[in-house]
Amino acid sequence: MREIEKNSVPQGFKFAGVHSGIKKSKRDLGLIYSCFPATSAGLFTTNRMQSGTVQVCKRNINNKVRAVLVNSGNANCATRDAFKSALLLNKSVAQELGIKESEVLSASTGVIGIPLPVEKIKKKIPFLVKQLKEDSREFAEAILTTDKQTKQIALEIEIKGKKVVVAGVAKGSGMISPHLATMLCFLTSDINIHKRLLYLCLKEAVDKSFNLITIDGQMSTNDTVLCLANAQAGNEKIVSGVGRSEKKELSKFQEALNYITTYLSREIVRDGEGATKLIEVVVRGAKRNEDAERVARQIANSSLIKAMFYGRSFNYGRIAAAIGASVHSLDTTEIYLSDKRKKIRIFKDGHFLERVDREGLAKILEGKEIEVIVDLREGGCMGKILGCDLSEEYIRINARY
Amino acid sequence: MREIEKNSVPQGFKFAGVHSGIKKSKRDLGLIYSCFPATSAGLFTTNRMQSGTVQVCKRNINNKVRAVLVNSGNANCATRDAFKSALLLNKSVAQELGIKESEVLSASTGVIGIPLPVEKIKKKIPFLVKQLKEDSREFAEAILTTDKQTKQIALEIEIKGKKVVVAGVAKGSGMISPHLATMLCFLTSDINIHKRLLYLCLKEAVDKSFNLITIDGQMSTNDTVLCLANAQAGNEKIVSGVGRSEKKELSKFQEALNYITTYLSREIVRDGEGATKLIEVVVRGAKRNEDAERVARQIANSSLIKAMFYGRSFNYGRIAAAIGASVHSLDTTEIYLSDKRKKIRIFKDGHFLERVDREGLAKILEGKEIEVIVDLREGGCMGKILGCDLSEEYIRINARY
Repeated sequence: MREIEKNSVPQGFKFAGVHSGIKKSKRDLGLIYSCFPATSAGLFTTNRMQSGTVQVCKRNINNKVRAVLVNSGNANCATRDAFKSALLLNKSVAQELGIKESEVLSASTGVIGIPLPVEKIKKKIPFLVKQLKEDSREFAEAILTTDKQTKQIALEIEIKGKKVVVAGVAKGSGMISPHLATMLCFLTSDINIHKRLLYLCLKEAVDKSFNLITIDGQMSTNDTVLCLANAQAGNEKIVSGVGRSEKKELSKFQEALNYITTYLSREIVRDGEGATKLIEVVVRGAKRNEDAERVARQIANSSLIKAMFYGRSFNYGRIAAAIGASVHSLDTTEIYLSDKRKKIRIFKDGHFLERVDREGLAKILEGKEIEVIVDLREGGCMGKILGCDLSEEYIRINARY
Repeated sequence: MREIEKNSVPQGFKFAGVHSGIKKSKRDLGLIYSCFPATSAGLFTTNRMQSGTVQVCKRNINNKVRAVLVNSGNANCATRDAFKSALLLNKSVAQELGIKESEVLSASTGVIGIPLPVEKIKKKIPFLVKQLKEDSREFAEAILTTDKQTKQIALEIEIKGKKVVVAGVAKGSGMISPHLATMLCFLTSDINIHKRLLYLCLKEAVDKSFNLITIDGQMSTNDTVLCLANAQAGNEKIVSGVGRSEKKELSKFQEALNYITTYLSREIVRDGEGATKLIEVVVRGAKRNEDAERVARQIANSSLIKAMFYGRSFNYGRIAAAIGASVHSLDTTEIYLSDKRKKIRIFKDGHFLERVDREGLAKILEGKEIEVIVDLREGGCMGKILGCDLSEEYIRINARY
């Protein structure tokens, strides 16, 4: 497994990104095109209010897929014609590319409740198709909202003697707290793999990455993670994942997907609205993994703790309060702060330690990445949530947006 | 029932508030003294991490009570000696007043995890006792942390032909999201009432007020609501609440408590850390009251919705997303914004309305009190949560504090 140029695309895929007029001047319309029918898998928000685009996408996800249309700046959600608008745009893309409507997937991100300017977008689709190229940079730009940076990565792996590329493009940056995946992420590969296995691999990768991040504890109406595999690498098809050889090849692909989604989720959190620090909360020693994750989420979503890290304040009592609020006794609990080079224990036997390396703590608080480690000392299970701090900038962005 | 001077105290009660040195210069130590043994009732945080002061207070709440000691600036929580410190201070107060230790209740508020400066405080207790007077203003000041204003109210009611006074003093202002009551509140009355009835009345008042507010969705380790009744009004004792006359008198007292706790909870939210607006979320038409309350809480705690109201932005889609995230279908839901003079429908039949009185909405957004009304149109139950907006000031306060 090796990282290659971030904007690399797997064989047989093309990407484009243009300005269609939803946003004032920035790119706001993206397209992924596979020259050959691709096997696909998808995971979507569990919010009961869902974008029209998500609804249409869920309808087509079980077909062989040729294209994915994505717009930013408008969620195409909670408007009268949301579903119809998504259908119309998919039809328009299908016509322009000479493929079937059922072969088009789609995703939207942006403001909820404002009608999508369908005619404006339709007009730009021929131009969008003309822009298709073997480079994902403009697409990565076109899907951003309040994100400051594009988020892309590509890996090369070897499967059954063939070079396979796996690439990922994602966007964050607010309304990020997953119930399943959150935000938009598009994974493409030229691997030849059975549809069911593709889904299982995607599910595992998302569970280990996007499902463990939070920026503001808010669930989106548009979260979409798609994975397309068009078999152009020419590897012998992975069909069952059973048997030593298949297991080994499958795990290589799984590892690549995990690597990509983990990288992209860290990038999403780092670029969270107003975020200045990455906060990793690790809870160990729980009786059940779910308990550990609940405690970690309670800490990562606490506005008081987030503001404390932003302000580099020593008000750690908020961490104990958050653990106690998730209905967990703290009698055996230990709490540490760490920057991965240094780990300092601050809480033990039900109370904060009086003699503690305050200079060391100050250094940890100054860093860009802080780890909060909670050891409940009740069992062998653990959970981890990746979050960020909360700054005035978050309020400013969302007061205006 | 009539409001009297806010700092009035019931017969036989005295209040004091001094500076003991926990805070730099402001009053930080308060005392309530009842010249006669008072019947008492209390409700406390359900956080598993609890202040030493709360622990001692819970131990004494079932006794007849003569005094309540309160400090601000330090939560006396999650330190090695938290429980012992609370015991020591109670003992000191008992000695100074010539009463039993078991007759003293206590409460603390402030930073968690820092040892309480017991000796400093002890030294000030004789002075504190000397300051006792029939006026609650200095006490109300002494219990504040980041609150900008004191919160007090007093009512006069007639019970069985006697004039009875019921008074309340409270403090907010961050870590406010109740699981039971949140913050500190001290209710005193000269009514003569049975202990069990006092508890039931307090419980109802708190359920209808403090339990329905949120500032930042964070549960405190120190929440305490106490109610003391010393029988000095000389009314014939209310003993059972059964029978027409007792029922009527009891309901007058209940009404007074409800009025006071409702007033104080609104004051707490209005003075929430960084708050500029009061946001009342009313959810109607639910199948069960709990469902309605859950949806209301999801909306009132959404940082995106709070930032939207702060910024007077029209990004209402966030409300639909929050309802959907609380796993509620929006097919029949209607959403309104209101300032109590005007009520404007913005969402119906699963989508936001395109033709809507935007000027009227802008006016509502400009106001200091905004009502979000959600009608789920599924049943006859309802729930209500009182919250506030989220401003840069909240972050600044909590980054420093």
